[in-house]
Amino acid sequence: MSERSVRIVLVGLGNLGRRFAGILADKSSDVWRRYGLDLLLVGVADSRGTAYEPRGLDPALVARIKSANRPIHEYPQAGRRGSAALDLVQHAQADLLCEASPVNLSSGGDPGLSCIRAALARGMHVVTPNKGPIVLAYRELVLLAKERGVSLRFDGTVAGGLPALYLGMRDLRGALILRVEAVPNLSTGLILDQLALGISWDEALARGRAEGQLEADPTWDLDGWDAAAKLVILANAVLDVPASLQDVARTGITGVSLADIQEEARRGNTFRLVALAERCPDGGYHLSVAPRPLSLVHPLGRLGSRGMGIVYSTDIYGTIVATIEEPNPLPSAATMLRDILDIYVHD
Amino acid sequence: MSERSVRIVLVGLGNLGRRFAGILADKSSDVWRRYGLDLLLVGVADSRGTAYEPRGLDPALVARIKSANRPIHEYPQAGRRGSAALDLVQHAQADLLCEASPVNLSSGGDPGLSCIRAALARGMHVVTPNKGPIVLAYRELVLLAKERGVSLRFDGTVAGGLPALYLGMRDLRGALILRVEAVPNLSTGLILDQLALGISWDEALARGRAEGQLEADPTWDLDGWDAAAKLVILANAVLDVPASLQDVARTGITGVSLADIQEEARRGNTFRLVALAERCPDGGYHLSVAPRPLSLVHPLGRLGSRGMGIVYSTDIYGTIVATIEEPNPLPSAATMLRDILDIYVHD
Repeated sequence: MSERSVRIVLVGLGNLGRRFAGILADKSSDVWRRYGLDLLLVGVADSRGTAYEPRGLDPALVARIKSANRPIHEYPQAGRRGSAALDLVQHAQADLLCEASPVNLSSGGDPGLSCIRAALARGMHVVTPNKGPIVLAYRELVLLAKERGVSLRFDGTVAGGLPALYLGMRDLRGALILRVEAVPNLSTGLILDQLALGISWDEALARGRAEGQLEADPTWDLDGWDAAAKLVILANAVLDVPASLQDVARTGITGVSLADIQEEARRGNTFRLVALAERCPDGGYHLSVAPRPLSLVHPLGRLGSRGMGIVYSTDIYGTIVATIEEPNPLPSAATMLRDILDIYVHD
Repeated sequence: MSERSVRIVLVGLGNLGRRFAGILADKSSDVWRRYGLDLLLVGVADSRGTAYEPRGLDPALVARIKSANRPIHEYPQAGRRGSAALDLVQHAQADLLCEASPVNLSSGGDPGLSCIRAALARGMHVVTPNKGPIVLAYRELVLLAKERGVSLRFDGTVAGGLPALYLGMRDLRGALILRVEAVPNLSTGLILDQLALGISWDEALARGRAEGQLEADPTWDLDGWDAAAKLVILANAVLDVPASLQDVARTGITGVSLADIQEEARRGNTFRLVALAERCPDGGYHLSVAPRPLSLVHPLGRLGSRGMGIVYSTDIYGTIVATIEEPNPLPSAATMLRDILDIYVHD
């Protein structure tokens, strides 16, 4: 086991980023003991500023500042108000970028996309649970990483903490994937389950927002954009299909009637927003997102409100199902640790 | 993508080995196209002889000879009656051994263990779905592979074609695994499901044998040795615990009464032989194998007679469940392809 230091810049300190700082605080000594890796958080950025310290910030303090809803430029000594994330990524002495800023598909994918481009161009590895840059620029970023001889990992973009992408990309190597069916997010299932209980749309949306499961703009989830984005990433990374959002036949959940949901619930079925890739006779895949009632015998038909999952139907590996029960966003944040260890650990 | 040739020796041409030869026949051109790997089957062995041809045997012909229940020494020109597998492994010009001979835990693990030792000592990679050598000599073989700078892969030893080991070893890196619960084989579930239907023990055993799901000596499955062997491999490879068969508290399925099975079935519960690793306060794991009734809400409670699965409960990745539906032994055989591609493909 070779010992080495990994200097990390973390951009985005919301739900996932601040939890990742907490994971670094909790896990660093264990990661050192088990893998000989010294994970050193040297820089962090939120939307209002940065903190940078080449000898290492205290990740527990970063987590505490953000859990108290304070801006990170209040970090003692190292904080810089108004300093931009991109500037940090371009100038920090660091080996790896964790990009966890908010998803942005409507205005060029920034700040995430620019930060990822800059990091890869500088020869830094990148791990990110941010769907935006991967959906908008998959091929470009994969190529750039390859050119610079660095790694780009994004396991957290699909189905939270479930290694849905690694399963498809690594464990199914050599197979023809006939069909992929996924419940790739929590937000819509949470709302559908409440509607099934007779709770009104307005109340269900309010609860989803209160639990932090809905983006600021709920149409992102409700109209199926989030599920479509995840399907696009699956298509590119697992199915090797150069798909974009326009290639997904997309139906959101707002058209589902309360009567339908409650009728299916009476039969024991659960409505979920399902992302589907079906192989066509021409070798391509038909990509769709739509709400579907799943029966109890469906492998994803018994996911709870905190469950996500994926079904891979293959020619030689049978049908493989993977699900996760995610009581809070910790597993999604932990995908950044999974990705980092995947880059550095070779056993 | 660098192009290279992988010269393979395949030992064992039973249920898994002959199917793997068929997979090589079907998949070689695709593997070449996608991964730049030329998989060349240069040597094969069954219990009565070998066939060796440095320029490559025809894997489809190997599969046909064995599917017709003929000895492999009948392979035209290249066949050698009475020649031993170990001799082939020691002298073939080859890069990799696929070891798929029958499980043998009672008399030193041969021929599998000797063949694997010889291959690693010669600097050949080894992939194997054979539990015997991994249970008997895990540490020795892992160390030997490391010394020689080669890879040892054994994904097919647990839960057939389900990547249960890869999931635990790679995707859960960094986590504390609190509990592992597995239905790691098909044989006992198949029998328990028939008993639940009111079929007699004798008839259920006869059907299991007819379907090729029971080993020649059914006590291996019925007394829980097979599940215990798989748990020992999980403990060593995933939990990093140096366990052996004696460390497993083992109860087979023969003590379960027909009345109990049928009573649980009436309640909607399914009996399965469950392998369990539970973390103890001292940091170790309690390992057990026992028949348990699983309710419909248990994540493994709705596996069909062709289903296997595993539940990992972790500190940072939530609870992750993976299951496989395996209508025939093809996925188990295909784990050898998965393992080979895992060694050679780095993307």
